[in-house]
Amino acid sequence: MKDALPAAAAIELIHAFSLVHDDLPAMDNDDLRRGQPTLHIHAGQAMAILAGDVMMSLAFEFISEATLEASQRVALAAELARATTAMIAGQVYDTLGGFEPGADTRERLELIHQHKTAALIRAACRMGAICGQASAGQLQAITLYGETTGLMFQIVDDLLDITQSAEHIGKATGKDETAGKLTYPRLYGEGGSRKEIERLRKAAHESLAKFGQAAGPLGDLCDRMAIRTK
Amino acid sequence: MKDALPAAAAIELIHAFSLVHDDLPAMDNDDLRRGQPTLHIHAGQAMAILAGDVMMSLAFEFISEATLEASQRVALAAELARATTAMIAGQVYDTLGGFEPGADTRERLELIHQHKTAALIRAACRMGAICGQASAGQLQAITLYGETTGLMFQIVDDLLDITQSAEHIGKATGKDETAGKLTYPRLYGEGGSRKEIERLRKAAHESLAKFGQAAGPLGDLCDRMAIRTK
Repeated sequence: MKDALPAAAAIELIHAFSLVHDDLPAMDNDDLRRGQPTLHIHAGQAMAILAGDVMMSLAFEFISEATLEASQRVALAAELARATTAMIAGQVYDTLGGFEPGADTRERLELIHQHKTAALIRAACRMGAICGQASAGQLQAITLYGETTGLMFQIVDDLLDITQSAEHIGKATGKDETAGKLTYPRLYGEGGSRKEIERLRKAAHESLAKFGQAAGPLGDLCDRMAIRTK
Repeated sequence: MKDALPAAAAIELIHAFSLVHDDLPAMDNDDLRRGQPTLHIHAGQAMAILAGDVMMSLAFEFISEATLEASQRVALAAELARATTAMIAGQVYDTLGGFEPGADTRERLELIHQHKTAALIRAACRMGAICGQASAGQLQAITLYGETTGLMFQIVDDLLDITQSAEHIGKATGKDETAGKLTYPRLYGEGGSRKEIERLRKAAHESLAKFGQAAGPLGDLCDRMAIRTK
């Protein structure tokens, strides 16, 4: 599906934008990413801010210039823009708080996870479906797959932060704990987290049922996300 | 033209995004904007970075959800994305340099002006024309108007930086001079700059000729931009 390439590139650009800006000293202040110095360490803060900015604008350039129907390009831009807004809101919740004082911690955690991680994975799944001119039913099924794997991804990420070394996963670990961040393991323990990962993994597989063999790679991807160690 | 409102809001969001990020300590490090504390002074750097980010994603959300033809929405998104990329490139040139050592200073100055300021004014003009379903000839004329007024706007801005007080224009002045920035007055003097403003003002009016009376407000806007003192 050659026509889906600009959409895939756009998603990767939005992902990279969020990592580069989240790593900034004023935000998560991370020096290490994938075993390499983060961009603001490598090229300075001004360049990291501007590079993140241009990744976002280029993402929308790629989509609007793709060789797809105008209606598809509009749908893709809407999906990606909403997911990007959601991710930024998730970072606001995660970095700056801003919840009501009495807000339930489980609800807060869900809010952070859904916005910060699941929104882009959900959008990536839906954007692929839009490129493939999926039916309404197919789009609904793939949306569910994206939402469940998106949540699962973040719980696995939170677990790795407390169970793996920085050398192994290529970025600082134990930071959530130190910062007193609201994470799944902190709220439900390691065992509870692993149970929830398994529940979501199964739900993701069920959402793929209607696609039969064709969705094999998506099932495999979900399984690999569940057991990854970095 | 009710349908043009989301496009107008999107342009204003991109403008605000660029101001908020350009004001950051790692960039132009400005404390004052329109007589008020800049956003990072008021709400902290993390919030200023995230607010700028979300302004950009919201701009593309607004456009993709507008009640216009899909082909118009795609054209609007493409215009705005390209202009945003150009503005960010302009900020890279302006803040970080990165020109070839032997590059001609006049060419450098033109490059900065065209990217940093003229690109968004040009896009704003073209996006209005797209909302109004302008013909190819009309679009060409309004593009020329946007390019000439855009360049004129920046030369006026550079002049104000050296001729007006911070109290009067509501932001720090004399900063270009101190930073040794490449500006029109520095290269061509105050007199040369005023001559160029007048040349561009006339060119902008000529570009509007084919619209007759209907373009009266655009002619007035250009005149006001030429003589503004803040």
